[in-house]
Amino acid sequence: MLPTIAWDLDDIVMIDQRKLPAQEIYVRCRTAKDVAKAITTMVIRGAPAIGVAAAMGIAAGMKRSKATGTRQFTVEFNQTCDLLAATRPTAVNLFWATARMKQAFGVGALAGESPAELADRLRREADAIHDEDVSSCRAIGDAGAGVVPQGARILTHCNAGALATAGYGTALGVIRSAAAQGKVAQVFADETRPFLQGARLTAWELTREGIPTTVITDSMAGLLLRDHRVDLVIVGADRIAANGDVANKVGTYTLAMMAHAHGVPVYVAAPRSTIDLSTPDGAGIPIEERSAKEITHVGGAQVVPDGASVWNPAFDVTPHRLIAGIVTERGIARAPYDASLRP
Amino acid sequence: MLPTIAWDLDDIVMIDQRKLPAQEIYVRCRTAKDVAKAITTMVIRGAPAIGVAAAMGIAAGMKRSKATGTRQFTVEFNQTCDLLAATRPTAVNLFWATARMKQAFGVGALAGESPAELADRLRREADAIHDEDVSSCRAIGDAGAGVVPQGARILTHCNAGALATAGYGTALGVIRSAAAQGKVAQVFADETRPFLQGARLTAWELTREGIPTTVITDSMAGLLLRDHRVDLVIVGADRIAANGDVANKVGTYTLAMMAHAHGVPVYVAAPRSTIDLSTPDGAGIPIEERSAKEITHVGGAQVVPDGASVWNPAFDVTPHRLIAGIVTERGIARAPYDASLRP
Repeated sequence: MLPTIAWDLDDIVMIDQRKLPAQEIYVRCRTAKDVAKAITTMVIRGAPAIGVAAAMGIAAGMKRSKATGTRQFTVEFNQTCDLLAATRPTAVNLFWATARMKQAFGVGALAGESPAELADRLRREADAIHDEDVSSCRAIGDAGAGVVPQGARILTHCNAGALATAGYGTALGVIRSAAAQGKVAQVFADETRPFLQGARLTAWELTREGIPTTVITDSMAGLLLRDHRVDLVIVGADRIAANGDVANKVGTYTLAMMAHAHGVPVYVAAPRSTIDLSTPDGAGIPIEERSAKEITHVGGAQVVPDGASVWNPAFDVTPHRLIAGIVTERGIARAPYDASLRP
Repeated sequence: MLPTIAWDLDDIVMIDQRKLPAQEIYVRCRTAKDVAKAITTMVIRGAPAIGVAAAMGIAAGMKRSKATGTRQFTVEFNQTCDLLAATRPTAVNLFWATARMKQAFGVGALAGESPAELADRLRREADAIHDEDVSSCRAIGDAGAGVVPQGARILTHCNAGALATAGYGTALGVIRSAAAQGKVAQVFADETRPFLQGARLTAWELTREGIPTTVITDSMAGLLLRDHRVDLVIVGADRIAANGDVANKVGTYTLAMMAHAHGVPVYVAAPRSTIDLSTPDGAGIPIEERSAKEITHVGGAQVVPDGASVWNPAFDVTPHRLIAGIVTERGIARAPYDASLRP
């Protein structure tokens, strides 16, 4: 199991996902601010993983609080929650995790707990969020493996793997479970520009486990599909609207359109913490735009001339009509998603 | 006008397209072998440009021949043609240029010309091919500008610019002509992995001329189209089959499918030397697969872990049904292309 994020006493240690696969470097976060920066700069990324990181960041921050009274501790807690929730806008897991930490805090505060007791409660809640994410991923993997045919050639986009979660992965969790059943002949990984999560992270995870993996550039997926070399597309999600529209890494929409046009089913794998029932459809999902430098510079070299503009949306929305099923820890939801995604 | 390729006495000088936009370095080719290597390694690329380069390479090679008799000169000439024709398989302009040089040679040989006279004839033919390519591009630009609406937002893929031709460009020729008429509000350039011709070359060409250019990753084009931010897609071609199917830089097929799905017309701009009437449809066009290293390494850094495979097809085929028109130096061909592309 890959060590995406873990406690080391009261510090949080995470593998630096910007440096993989060239270097396996671990980043130590002592404060909530450290964790917020790690999320913003994509030391850690992937919707479930940043939800877990936010919860752990809140717990770490409050453990180190010097507030003596509950009132001051509460003010700091809310500020810390705000700090973590503001790191990235699209993945709903961040807000889900923050809300869950607030709920735990509320229970403790209502019971008249001291700051030290509240801090311990927050740590336990963060641990629960972490551990539940791993078990959700395993349940997703096992449920999703059912739709993978024998000898499957699977195409995935970005990294919805152990690195994008507390462990095991969502889309890659399905691939892991299916591979354990001897079903996976070949995985194709879109390299996923600009951050190259597919080339750097997905290929790294899968080859470590001996699953045959072929990297292509994002624009080759259409040709691969046209050539009947893919049986199944499976991706993760950053936010799933109530109607089943899915925000995921930019390029997913195009991939789903191409798969649909070629009769290849597209599955989305995500824990239920990714479902946002308060957003009716994909039009309501905010899409983060990131720094131009992610596109203008590659591997340290400037590839876009000065004078050219850049547009860098990090996500796009895939309409539910293109999705064959959404795999969660409770099984596979099918259309109509309004009904099947309900609690 | 950009100096894509030019004579310097009996040498051929070309701008190194691997180094742009960071460095403007010129590569000097003395022999046909030098030119063949420049084509293979993509110092020069773009179907019309490599056709011109092949012709000039043959002329340069034969000028330096030490053959005294016509018989030996003819043997060398055929070897030189074979060398240039074997550099890359997809762009038909290479074979068109080689065939045209052979035809010129045949005329001279039939007239009993000496090796020196034949070499001069080959040089004149190469010059004609070069100059006709520029004038074809200008005619393409002017014909194509007619389909560009006022205030157009144009999306292009790869580089079908001055750098891909002897000058002015095909798709970018249309953009240049339309911009000169004040019609172009915005150009979006797909960065075009793996070689990044869009980011490095198209953005460089267009920003030098003050045409507003925004670079996106290839997988963002779908979102751009969905958001109604594109009026027109225009691309070049590496080979056009008799039925109008178009081989072009990998990703063009996906782009055309997405544009078609969103009601945005796709135009292809290419000189008639790119039309291959002997290939009935796209299925007959050989697709070059290039080195894995183009994908595994970016800007000198390794981004794909050892152990992962790579698939690197350089082109794909866009079926004619997705193409609104093919702009050549003779005007705009429309469906049915079997009829409209005929000589």
